Amino acid sequence: MDIGALLTSAGINIAICVVLLSLYSILRKQPSNVSVYFMRRLISEPIKHSDPFRFERLVPSASWIVRAWQATNEEILAAGGVDALVFLRIVVFSIRVFIIAAMICVFLLLPVNYYGQEMQHKQIHSESLEVFTIGNVKEGSKWFWTHCLALYVISCSACVLLHFEYKNITKMRLAHITGSPVNPSHFTVLVRSIPCSQNHSYSKSVEDFFSTYYPASYVSHQMVYRAGRVDKLMKDAEKMYRMLKTIESTTKKSYMPCCLCGKSTHSFEALNNDAESVEIKTSSDELQPSQREKKLKISEQKDVEKIYRKLKTIETQNKMSSTPGCLCGGIMHYFKMLKKEAESVECKTSSDRSQPSQTDKERPAAFVFFRTRYAAIVAAQVLQSSNPMLWVTQLAPEPNDVYWSNLSIPYKQVWLRKIATLLGAFVFMFVFLAPVTFVQGLTQLDQLRQTFPFLKGILKQKFMNQLVTGYLPSVILMLFMYAVPPTMMLFSTIEGNVSHSERKKSAGIKVLYFTIWNVFFVNVLSGSIIRQLSVFSSFRDIPTQLAKAVPTQATFFTTYVLTSGWASLSCEVIQLFPLLCNGFRRFILRRQEEPCSNHALTFPHHTEIPRLLLFGLLGFTCSIMAPLILPFLLVYFFLAFLVYRNQILNVYVPKYESGGQFWPVVHNTTIFSLVLTQVIALGVFGIKRSPVASGFTIPLIFLTLLFNEYCRQRFSPVFKRSPAQYRFL
Amino acid sequence: MDIGALLTSAGINIAICVVLLSLYSILRKQPSNVSVYFMRRLISEPIKHSDPFRFERLVPSASWIVRAWQATNEEILAAGGVDALVFLRIVVFSIRVFIIAAMICVFLLLPVNYYGQEMQHKQIHSESLEVFTIGNVKEGSKWFWTHCLALYVISCSACVLLHFEYKNITKMRLAHITGSPVNPSHFTVLVRSIPCSQNHSYSKSVEDFFSTYYPASYVSHQMVYRAGRVDKLMKDAEKMYRMLKTIESTTKKSYMPCCLCGKSTHSFEALNNDAESVEIKTSSDELQPSQREKKLKISEQKDVEKIYRKLKTIETQNKMSSTPGCLCGGIMHYFKMLKKEAESVECKTSSDRSQPSQTDKERPAAFVFFRTRYAAIVAAQVLQSSNPMLWVTQLAPEPNDVYWSNLSIPYKQVWLRKIATLLGAFVFMFVFLAPVTFVQGLTQLDQLRQTFPFLKGILKQKFMNQLVTGYLPSVILMLFMYAVPPTMMLFSTIEGNVSHSERKKSAGIKVLYFTIWNVFFVNVLSGSIIRQLSVFSSFRDIPTQLAKAVPTQATFFTTYVLTSGWASLSCEVIQLFPLLCNGFRRFILRRQEEPCSNHALTFPHHTEIPRLLLFGLLGFTCSIMAPLILPFLLVYFFLAFLVYRNQILNVYVPKYESGGQFWPVVHNTTIFSLVLTQVIALGVFGIKRSPVASGFTIPLIFLTLLFNEYCRQRFSPVFKRSPAQYRFL
Repeated sequence: MDIGALLTSAGINIAICVVLLSLYSILRKQPSNVSVYFMRRLISEPIKHSDPFRFERLVPSASWIVRAWQATNEEILAAGGVDALVFLRIVVFSIRVFIIAAMICVFLLLPVNYYGQEMQHKQIHSESLEVFTIGNVKEGSKWFWTHCLALYVISCSACVLLHFEYKNITKMRLAHITGSPVNPSHFTVLVRSIPCSQNHSYSKSVEDFFSTYYPASYVSHQMVYRAGRVDKLMKDAEKMYRMLKTIESTTKKSYMPCCLCGKSTHSFEALNNDAESVEIKTSSDELQPSQREKKLKISEQKDVEKIYRKLKTIETQNKMSSTPGCLCGGIMHYFKMLKKEAESVECKTSSDRSQPSQTDKERPAAFVFFRTRYAAIVAAQVLQSSNPMLWVTQLAPEPNDVYWSNLSIPYKQVWLRKIATLLGAFVFMFVFLAPVTFVQGLTQLDQLRQTFPFLKGILKQKFMNQLVTGYLPSVILMLFMYAVPPTMMLFSTIEGNVSHSERKKSAGIKVLYFTIWNVFFVNVLSGSIIRQLSVFSSFRDIPTQLAKAVPTQATFFTTYVLTSGWASLSCEVIQLFPLLCNGFRRFILRRQEEPCSNHALTFPHHTEIPRLLLFGLLGFTCSIMAPLILPFLLVYFFLAFLVYRNQILNVYVPKYESGGQFWPVVHNTTIFSLVLTQVIALGVFGIKRSPVASGFTIPLIFLTLLFNEYCRQRFSPVFKRSPAQYRFL
Repeated sequence: MDIGALLTSAGINIAICVVLLSLYSILRKQPSNVSVYFMRRLISEPIKHSDPFRFERLVPSASWIVRAWQATNEEILAAGGVDALVFLRIVVFSIRVFIIAAMICVFLLLPVNYYGQEMQHKQIHSESLEVFTIGNVKEGSKWFWTHCLALYVISCSACVLLHFEYKNITKMRLAHITGSPVNPSHFTVLVRSIPCSQNHSYSKSVEDFFSTYYPASYVSHQMVYRAGRVDKLMKDAEKMYRMLKTIESTTKKSYMPCCLCGKSTHSFEALNNDAESVEIKTSSDELQPSQREKKLKISEQKDVEKIYRKLKTIETQNKMSSTPGCLCGGIMHYFKMLKKEAESVECKTSSDRSQPSQTDKERPAAFVFFRTRYAAIVAAQVLQSSNPMLWVTQLAPEPNDVYWSNLSIPYKQVWLRKIATLLGAFVFMFVFLAPVTFVQGLTQLDQLRQTFPFLKGILKQKFMNQLVTGYLPSVILMLFMYAVPPTMMLFSTIEGNVSHSERKKSAGIKVLYFTIWNVFFVNVLSGSIIRQLSVFSSFRDIPTQLAKAVPTQATFFTTYVLTSGWASLSCEVIQLFPLLCNGFRRFILRRQEEPCSNHALTFPHHTEIPRLLLFGLLGFTCSIMAPLILPFLLVYFFLAFLVYRNQILNVYVPKYESGGQFWPVVHNTTIFSLVLTQVIALGVFGIKRSPVASGFTIPLIFLTLLFNEYCRQRFSPVFKRSPAQYRFL
């Protein structure tokens, strides 16, 4: 591929981006799309709907870019929580480190590579891209110290920036833990694997256990119940009936109640403040039990009254307690939250529901409420029983975060499920090799001509040639990649995670491994070796093989950044699928009301973080070998910065908050990318017979690993356990 | 090597064993050796010294074997604690599993191997050993199902027995935690990395921190002090002076006081019972500060009185506390223990010691005492600070177990030290290749003849030939191996472990890796490949390479069991080094008094466990390939059973107790051995073209790993954290 083909590819992609972004800026002005592009605002602020038609609505504008650029950290925090802020730090880190890399690589390495050996240079337009890679520098050249220097500068600046980010994010997380409003889930522990007793119920077991071992801090508990199969069938039938009814009569019937319950997330703070003033009558009325689709049964009225009386007694007893008043209200509030969450899932006015059948079985899981936040942390961290597979405790997820259907999975299955899904994901990773190998074949035209002789005519045209080599492979790969996150999400669901955030994190890690393996390694190593399936047959040859393969594959990666990177951002901002759904709902189903908040999307960390990290990996590994990738990558990250800020401010609704839990994964992946870069550089210096450069690279690898170990010691425990210093907050 | 050579080797070893064991049975009857062979009894029971000379004292007898055999579990527990009992479980497990393996392998596999292919069998005496290995079965034979069956039987019985042992040892450990007498170290937490403050001392920081965050349960604390350099020099000079003085005048001066302080370990329970009755005056007198060689300074009189007053107040306040009375006495007792420990290290009557200089610096480490055992467990397990490298807590080791000089290592260095020692141990492992390669050369006579032509004459003699191939290599290897444990112990000391038991465990793991690598893998792989140093150059070939190498190296391993195994047990029982020291002391230095208890040896887990596990590994891997090793191995384990019981009952003094902490290591190593065996078998079945046997082996590997994961989930957390259920005990 030459500069011309690259520019063709860039041209196509720039055009697509401009078209899509313009389209977005028009679409977002249409009132009918407000639920697609302004879902978060729709929920938190009233938006005027009586916009008269104006001509401006059809003119593309860049106002959203300005607004996204100008938003402050406080606004982001308010809109998307700590997770959003931490996510944007990944983008900022990437921009910073790749600006440094681009400076040194473009101004120092590019000339060195270009004039690396004595040759007749063609016109710049038809110059092969390989002339700009390290492959063009002749063996034993004295100029390899520039590459080594660049490697040092990039590694050091990456480590310094990583340390800076880790430190700040740890601070942010701690501030979130202490500064967030008192959340009843802080006082709650989720207990699983309650041992079965012949004499009494699970509920009695829980009460006995915790009142024996935590007499001072145990308050109460709430069992998890399982809905019967008949219940579920009836629920489905009812849902169908409601749906059909709605379609028939396009009235605005259910608008208000829907949005009321949708507000649960945002009315949180307000409710919390006046939680004390909640009357017993009201709350027990509100807690009228009703069977939930999500297999949760809120405890019956008697239970609630019992708990309330208990809480009242405790409250009057310890007026001097560290969380006075707040606790009782808090736990009543937790009940309400649980109820509202379950309601909002169904999104309907509960009124004529039947009493739950008394045959419903308790599951061996329960939420246990404690008197203080510290007691809950301790109960969650300490080993409860001499059999570590019984009485398994963890801090309860936020009410919105609980993944109800997994609560009833027996804990003894969880480790088996984890292994099974791991194997499943592994197999999936290798089955996926088929499309990737096919894509790889497309970049090698000669092979393609041999396999499909009828294509010869088409491929002779220069433009088609450039299109096929420069564009098609990435598009095909991208389409295949869209199937991956849902599959990994399915695996993570089967795994038995009890909260949405855990599930998303676990899926994200799987997607990350998948992406790095299938996009980076398979593409790098496929060219020559994949057919013999002996990719990793030898240990010591890995650096050499990578060193041979990466510079030649740099072209593919550059086009991958152009197509997959830029296009994915345009797709992200235009929200194609929700847009189509919205259109279908409005113009086919003729439903005019706004969808309720639980149709709102949460930020898809599990797809976006792996994508950013993949581009980071490509940037690091190619920076020294083929610096031409860096400008394109920088454009990607700048665009990502704007797009994600816009999306966080306008589209995604934060239903739960993990407090930047995913940062250690990001950190480790970045370190992995750095070390991989250094190993590849080591291999290249070896092939090019530059012992000095090789010699200087080895300590760099060692130092990078040492830095990683330091960060692991210094910061990562805070992401696993809550420090006790914060117990009074 | 043929059967004849093997029998020669066995003959030599049996003779050596019989001679050494007879010698032992004579030596142990000599009153002058009582401190070598009966140290533990000497400390716990009074032994009569006025034995008149009788002729029986010069006649070998087997009475010690009978006594070792007849000892009950209770006696072992009383003599050696839980650690000794758990150690003996390794031996018992090995005996059981190898009896099963020997039954099936000798009666089923040996005939299959021997008649594996049609050949003219020689006289059994001069039959090559290779005829008995799996190498003799012809390719594609239908009889490989017997090997596969044997593999299944061995793996399943090993897993069942492992589960049984793990379960029992967990029970034992829990019983130890709950059943052991209230030990003040249970109430104590060791805090390290106390942050430096400009305004006040470390001591004040500790008090502020714990009285803020643990107001209800914090009692008091004790700083760790550093002795100055001058102090140390003076101490050394004093020690030299005392030593010289003792040699000059061979009086019995220091006999009594020495044994008094030596008794600290055993007077433990007695002291604990009447701890309440200890008077304030006595204890504060006893706690008169004196500078310690081991860099500990017991707090000054004022401190002690202050703490005592505080304790007294607490005790009178909470008469209803869960550990009434016990606590105050307990912590006073802990002080005393610390003092006695430090005293017994110096082994002298402290009387005229000068007041410690006030310039001694506090170190950023302290022992913090809590009101209840549970509070200490919580404080040890919970993350204390938002900076995980400050306020690092762990349960305090027992007073005898504390490794004082490492307490003053800054915690921030510890992770660096760990990495450094890991690298050091790794380098040491590879440097050690030199002697191993040399040893390996000895088994290949032809090569030896080529290298040293002058040896040709000697090596022509048949006996010399057998001696060199069958015996010399193992002896040389064994001698080299003696240097390993002290080196690894040194590494573990540098690592910064704060207790003797941790240090020993860490050294044990290093020795284990070292032994398995250098004895097993290097020997297996050296024959053909070691010279190119590309041992692990290829992934997928490992099973095949191992499969080729293990059966041919089985001969070497059989002789290794004979020499290293049997001889090491004889050396163990005869205690050569202490015996020589004792002789030197008695007959050269003319010191007649018994040595005091702190010269007593603790059980060398760090050398004996790796040795047992190595023989287990050899047994498993060779069982199917070369079943002839099994009878010799069984003899080894039977002898080990008797010898170690004897040693535990008579020789080793348990100074501290880890509660079977090392069992998970044993378990994991055994699983590793099993999986390695299966992988090798897979390779062999592959080479021998038996697809059915290969096919059945793969699920076995998977099931074994699954079993290991189950055990990890089910049992191992109890070995890392104390379960909260036991808080009231």
